[in-house]
Amino acid sequence: MTKGIKIVTIGGGSSYTPELVEGFIKRYESLPVSELWLVDIPEGEEKLNIVGGLAKRMIKEAGLPIKVHLTLNRREALKDADFVTTQFRVGLLEARAKDERIPLKYGVIGQETNGPGGLFKGLRTIPVILDIIRDMEELCPNAWLINFTNPAGMVTEAVLRYSNWRKVIGLCNVPVGMKMGIAAQLGVEPERVHIDFAGLNHMIYGLDIYLDGELYTDKYINLITSEDESSGTMQNIVDLKWEPEFIKALKAIPCPYHRYYYKTDEMFDEEMKAAETVGTRAEVVQKLEKELFELYQDESLTIKPPQLEKRGGAYYSDAACNLIDSIYNDRKDIQPVNTMNNGAIASIPNDSAVEINCVITKDGPKPIAIGDLPVATRGLVQQIKSFERVAAEAAVTGDYQTALLAMTINPLVPSDTIAKEILDEMLEAHKEHLPQFN
Amino acid sequence: MTKGIKIVTIGGGSSYTPELVEGFIKRYESLPVSELWLVDIPEGEEKLNIVGGLAKRMIKEAGLPIKVHLTLNRREALKDADFVTTQFRVGLLEARAKDERIPLKYGVIGQETNGPGGLFKGLRTIPVILDIIRDMEELCPNAWLINFTNPAGMVTEAVLRYSNWRKVIGLCNVPVGMKMGIAAQLGVEPERVHIDFAGLNHMIYGLDIYLDGELYTDKYINLITSEDESSGTMQNIVDLKWEPEFIKALKAIPCPYHRYYYKTDEMFDEEMKAAETVGTRAEVVQKLEKELFELYQDESLTIKPPQLEKRGGAYYSDAACNLIDSIYNDRKDIQPVNTMNNGAIASIPNDSAVEINCVITKDGPKPIAIGDLPVATRGLVQQIKSFERVAAEAAVTGDYQTALLAMTINPLVPSDTIAKEILDEMLEAHKEHLPQFN
Amino acid sequence: MTKGIKIVTIGGGSSYTPELVEGFIKRYESLPVSELWLVDIPEGEEKLNIVGGLAKRMIKEAGLPIKVHLTLNRREALKDADFVTTQFRVGLLEARAKDERIPLKYGVIGQETNGPGGLFKGLRTIPVILDIIRDMEELCPNAWLINFTNPAGMVTEAVLRYSNWRKVIGLCNVPVGMKMGIAAQLGVEPERVHIDFAGLNHMIYGLDIYLDGELYTDKYINLITSEDESSGTMQNIVDLKWEPEFIKALKAIPCPYHRYYYKTDEMFDEEMKAAETVGTRAEVVQKLEKELFELYQDESLTIKPPQLEKRGGAYYSDAACNLIDSIYNDRKDIQPVNTMNNGAIASIPNDSAVEINCVITKDGPKPIAIGDLPVATRGLVQQIKSFERVAAEAAVTGDYQTALLAMTINPLVPSDTIAKEILDEMLEAHKEHLPQFN
Amino acid sequence: MTKGIKIVTIGGGSSYTPELVEGFIKRYESLPVSELWLVDIPEGEEKLNIVGGLAKRMIKEAGLPIKVHLTLNRREALKDADFVTTQFRVGLLEARAKDERIPLKYGVIGQETNGPGGLFKGLRTIPVILDIIRDMEELCPNAWLINFTNPAGMVTEAVLRYSNWRKVIGLCNVPVGMKMGIAAQLGVEPERVHIDFAGLNHMIYGLDIYLDGELYTDKYINLITSEDESSGTMQNIVDLKWEPEFIKALKAIPCPYHRYYYKTDEMFDEEMKAAETVGTRAEVVQKLEKELFELYQDESLTIKPPQLEKRGGAYYSDAACNLIDSIYNDRKDIQPVNTMNNGAIASIPNDSAVEINCVITKDGPKPIAIGDLPVATRGLVQQIKSFERVAAEAAVTGDYQTALLAMTINPLVPSDTIAKEILDEMLEAHKEHLPQFN
Repeated sequence: MTKGIKIVTIGGGSSYTPELVEGFIKRYESLPVSELWLVDIPEGEEKLNIVGGLAKRMIKEAGLPIKVHLTLNRREALKDADFVTTQFRVGLLEARAKDERIPLKYGVIGQETNGPGGLFKGLRTIPVILDIIRDMEELCPNAWLINFTNPAGMVTEAVLRYSNWRKVIGLCNVPVGMKMGIAAQLGVEPERVHIDFAGLNHMIYGLDIYLDGELYTDKYINLITSEDESSGTMQNIVDLKWEPEFIKALKAIPCPYHRYYYKTDEMFDEEMKAAETVGTRAEVVQKLEKELFELYQDESLTIKPPQLEKRGGAYYSDAACNLIDSIYNDRKDIQPVNTMNNGAIASIPNDSAVEINCVITKDGPKPIAIGDLPVATRGLVQQIKSFERVAAEAAVTGDYQTALLAMTINPLVPSDTIAKEILDEMLEAHKEHLPQFN
Repeated sequence: MTKGIKIVTIGGGSSYTPELVEGFIKRYESLPVSELWLVDIPEGEEKLNIVGGLAKRMIKEAGLPIKVHLTLNRREALKDADFVTTQFRVGLLEARAKDERIPLKYGVIGQETNGPGGLFKGLRTIPVILDIIRDMEELCPNAWLINFTNPAGMVTEAVLRYSNWRKVIGLCNVPVGMKMGIAAQLGVEPERVHIDFAGLNHMIYGLDIYLDGELYTDKYINLITSEDESSGTMQNIVDLKWEPEFIKALKAIPCPYHRYYYKTDEMFDEEMKAAETVGTRAEVVQKLEKELFELYQDESLTIKPPQLEKRGGAYYSDAACNLIDSIYNDRKDIQPVNTMNNGAIASIPNDSAVEINCVITKDGPKPIAIGDLPVATRGLVQQIKSFERVAAEAAVTGDYQTALLAMTINPLVPSDTIAKEILDEMLEAHKEHLPQFN
Repeated sequence: MTKGIKIVTIGGGSSYTPELVEGFIKRYESLPVSELWLVDIPEGEEKLNIVGGLAKRMIKEAGLPIKVHLTLNRREALKDADFVTTQFRVGLLEARAKDERIPLKYGVIGQETNGPGGLFKGLRTIPVILDIIRDMEELCPNAWLINFTNPAGMVTEAVLRYSNWRKVIGLCNVPVGMKMGIAAQLGVEPERVHIDFAGLNHMIYGLDIYLDGELYTDKYINLITSEDESSGTMQNIVDLKWEPEFIKALKAIPCPYHRYYYKTDEMFDEEMKAAETVGTRAEVVQKLEKELFELYQDESLTIKPPQLEKRGGAYYSDAACNLIDSIYNDRKDIQPVNTMNNGAIASIPNDSAVEINCVITKDGPKPIAIGDLPVATRGLVQQIKSFERVAAEAAVTGDYQTALLAMTINPLVPSDTIAKEILDEMLEAHKEHLPQFN
Repeated sequence: MTKGIKIVTIGGGSSYTPELVEGFIKRYESLPVSELWLVDIPEGEEKLNIVGGLAKRMIKEAGLPIKVHLTLNRREALKDADFVTTQFRVGLLEARAKDERIPLKYGVIGQETNGPGGLFKGLRTIPVILDIIRDMEELCPNAWLINFTNPAGMVTEAVLRYSNWRKVIGLCNVPVGMKMGIAAQLGVEPERVHIDFAGLNHMIYGLDIYLDGELYTDKYINLITSEDESSGTMQNIVDLKWEPEFIKALKAIPCPYHRYYYKTDEMFDEEMKAAETVGTRAEVVQKLEKELFELYQDESLTIKPPQLEKRGGAYYSDAACNLIDSIYNDRKDIQPVNTMNNGAIASIPNDSAVEINCVITKDGPKPIAIGDLPVATRGLVQQIKSFERVAAEAAVTGDYQTALLAMTINPLVPSDTIAKEILDEMLEAHKEHLPQFN
């Protein structure tokens, strides 16, 4: 890597890319990126060019020797890469809108990561990821794959189980978002907050919170269960309050996505209301993206526009750049990522993916052993883990029965018959992107 | 035990008792019971006398030297017992009716074993069981406790976790019922059918079915997913059919109770319909029991009346007598019971209760190691295990927050807020039988 | 199997075969063997003919329609077999004599199963077993492989780890020998004794002993640590007494082979003394076998001659016939065999071979979960398990370093340098039978 | 801790103390120690005064406001302590000399940590440590106990198993010594070397070595197995070379103490030779200590004298000060310490002590999960773990049989009979310091 680092971003035309570029600019001194390849598919060429143009202007403004390449040729880009990040969306936001809307018709939350929608996002995404890995094995066998594409837990599970590639890390902005949100609620700098994270992607718990190294969990729980405070959430998840006694007994801080499981009825009502008014999240984001791309086209824009934060991916790229920086520099700092469990959580198989605090080294993330999750959280975590495993199998085999099994065991789906109805309609709606099922 | 076996049945006034008595009569040659003590509480004295009278007539008719004692003095009965069976119901069927009806008001199935109703049955039952154990430690330290009282899994978990008593076995008629039902569907003698059972109480799976020692699982699944056949159930659970592709992919035979989790919406509708017409199960049983006790009073009745089978507890006493017989005679045959896991199911902690095929020896049940449950079943099983553990803790501590946590993590309960509403109403409704919460 | 059972015995010219034949004759009613194929290699043809002749006379005498085939064509024999038993010895007793004598020169016990000798027996045997399995996959995919060939634990481990064949059971006469010996010491019928066996092959412990279903462990330990009693052993292992306080604290009954590890110095002295006088065990057995084969040639002999018992394999064939009978008849009785752990012993990986009490079904052995071995025994057991795994890897790969690693970590070998000296001399001495190392 | 940190050092009269004092002086800026209490017993008063005098002169020379207290009153010292370090030696070096010499008479290495000598050091030490903990529970319940007293693994195991105290860390200089030695062999600064450590105390392996973040394991193994290089050892262990092929196959770097197990015969010869010439290690150290204390008495000495390094405890105090500094400052850096396993090493029980790389936080060490140790190392590690557990039980109960069991299962002891002979002589020799056995 003496000649500078080569980064490849698959799905480079994403509206998130300017954040990633900003991250590399900020860290240039310790993380000397020499080449940034933004890769997309023909359908995304226009967005790629717009985003790529902004990326080039940002780097020029910063006065850095980072060369930006825009390409539709993935294999050319992957050659000798050091890090490959994936942030693509098979079927674009139109597919996500279907993931969200179709289940609602059957009285079920879509949830594009760990719900019925997430099953379909996984079915569309996993074959593409495994295809990228086959290219990487040939073209850049020493590179790290940093996957942001959701459902990040299911994708990591699929890579660990259905390929021999081990240099893969699933990345999510939920933990860093929780940390930032908690710091903001406490009115302190984020560096003063530490959270012991463990669980699965979008099913992660803060087992303990520390402020300046002192245990702060109970005080924080008191705060978020009090009258006037937010209970801690993200841009894209409504701020429903927890029952104080429940959250006190849980002895762990749920992540915003836990509302889908611990407040299923209320969340369904919110999703229905939104679907009937402002649109589902995908539809809201479609409008936001449209506005963003209009901004990005402005040739005078040479920085990441502040409007990007509303998009919901706050900290995503920051998390990615920090992770790449820690691997490159062997920093041995602690970051929560999706990686092989290796015994860190007792009730999850050693060879499954978990999302957990890791020491980040040049040799990858090393999970910190926690013993086990609190008893009360194990069931839900295991249910999502089973769902991820069966869904990954369905994605690889294209087997209808396995897909139905995954849908039925999802905790949001209330019966095998409803599961079948949703499955059948979604398989039809997405068939263009599910060649393995034909 | 040279002087014959002393059996103590707590809740001896139960309508099930004649079945138990019949079981002892049938097995007298290998299982020479010399004393049968039927114990009840003052509120049950009338029923105790009726059932006890029938028991005495049955034994007289059989010409056996079994002495039947009726008593309200539990400690007198326990002295030097060899086996203690428990089949009592704290709060009687009135309490069960509340367990079933109150959740329905909030759109939730009551389910008196693994649902919100089961939580309350556990909260009422566990302190009494632990109290019986304290007596047994003093009065009959070598006896076995055979618990039929539901929720049998939660009760066994509580005994393992909150006492030092290890000679406890939780017993359920679901596995034997499944075996009998399958044999009937196949038109063969039950002895020709073997099922590899594993899971938790009322959350048990038939991992494989054998007919005459040959694997028959796939054929049986084809049978129950075909048009005209029952999908296998019990007296008290409606026969809703499984989606064929789901059950084929599951690669295990669910028990009748699984309908509550894999067909939640449909089961809720059935329960509501019943509640509005014939009454909940408790209310149906109340009527059945009334009729049974009228029969039992008939001085000319000297056998178990056939009407008892409709009561829903078919095979319960048979299972109990078989278990006692195998322990007494060190038979080393295979029976599914609730016992300490000891590594038999990988994803359940070694020190938790599971319901699993065991070799029954004089030294108790030895679970047969299965490796692990099928991936797709682990989530739901873990969820019920977490529920059982948290519920047992709530029963012992009387802690409100812990009870709310148990209610919220139950897979039938859709939110922490609804959990709290149900909990509060049920705590009030049952307060007479929940001294630990006052 | 309606036409009767086809048994194939590889190494059919072994002196043990008459015992096996006797076993089949005794069990004919429940285990109707129609064909018995005795297979051997050209070097063993003479012995095959002698033993085969006796087998035919024995069956004729019994008046049973079992057809005995003698062949050097293994593939012909395997076609459509129901059970394949393996009892061959690559390199014959000459090789065993080297396994025993060479280590002695370096001050180390040879021990042909779990010692340096056992490593070489494994290196010679495992490739042949894997070759037999390849034939079975093609010619009799539904057959069971019952392996008596030592080292039975290492061979089972190798089959589980380096083939996809799962219908394999490793069988040893040590547990049945312990049971018979203990019954004899107690002066009772063997059926009245039950032992909870768990561990590894030739490293198995009786965790508890029961007489007529009552715990008898402490009384038995008192017996064998008293002045005048044997401490329980076998024909081929000298009867050195245990230190009473050690065996009392161990809380488990060691097997005769444990003397090699808990009495290493004394056993070395015994082996040296024997080597200098009567010869090593292999040399003693060579003489015994010579005498046996002279007997076997006697055309008037039509039963198993009583002299066979001195050979050391007492109960081996009985164990095998019982096992085959229980599989064939789906007996679900308890027998100690080598099979996949599946969680039965907590400190051994689930996918490793253990020797443990199993329920024997038509679908194979199901291990009974014990939780874990007593703390004090785990180290030695783990050491032999590590040795077996590394040795199996060396046998399959033919890698010199791996073989040296196996030799060095064997608990009988006192240093890496001595390990290398023994290894080098033995590799040279056995090179004819170790093609994978050339 | 706003008023500065209170450190209590039990065994403060040790010759190591000047190194500890130097460590606190060097780190004063980040680790502001305000009070250092050196505690000893009456027999050690003279040495305490000598060492204490030097400590005071060193601090005065450094111009720091650290107050040094010398006391024989342990309870007074412990009051409100922040960190308690233990470095005492029950029975002084005389006892260690017996630990080393007595086993040699029976042909067995004494090995004062994981050998027969270590058993006796544990029997003498563990009751005192548990006594200190009882004082700490009362007098300084928030303090950390940093134990340097050997056998550090067995002591940590005993604390975890026989007390409720969890703020305990066992510390050893072997890992840091390995790191320093490897850096020296490579001719690089220690900071450039990172080692993935895992195992048990004095049974720890370097699973991988990194130089500047790049994997360097194979190159290092090539180096130490080449002709001219040391194979990496410590002051007190002779530098015997490993067999190259063995160490290459092991796929891990053994620690210097592994020579006792992988080169038992050669190490015994070295120990015998030393015992007959220069004396055992204890006897050598006695002379070194005498010289050191003469130096320490020199009133003009105001720094740690360089002769201390020969004493063998190089880096011990450095390791201790680094550990205390990282806890105090919540540094989250990686250090190898003895702590509860918590799943970090799969084949060791979760609740046992291991020595492993941990992230050091204000809340203590968090072990980094490694999955499992290499197969070939698990047996020996498990054997020492079993030894530690049984020895800890013997130390707490004073039970003769349990002590014999521990002695017999030690991998250096060749038979139960020899174990008993050694045990009996050592129990007699040490009886003054083993009140629990009388």
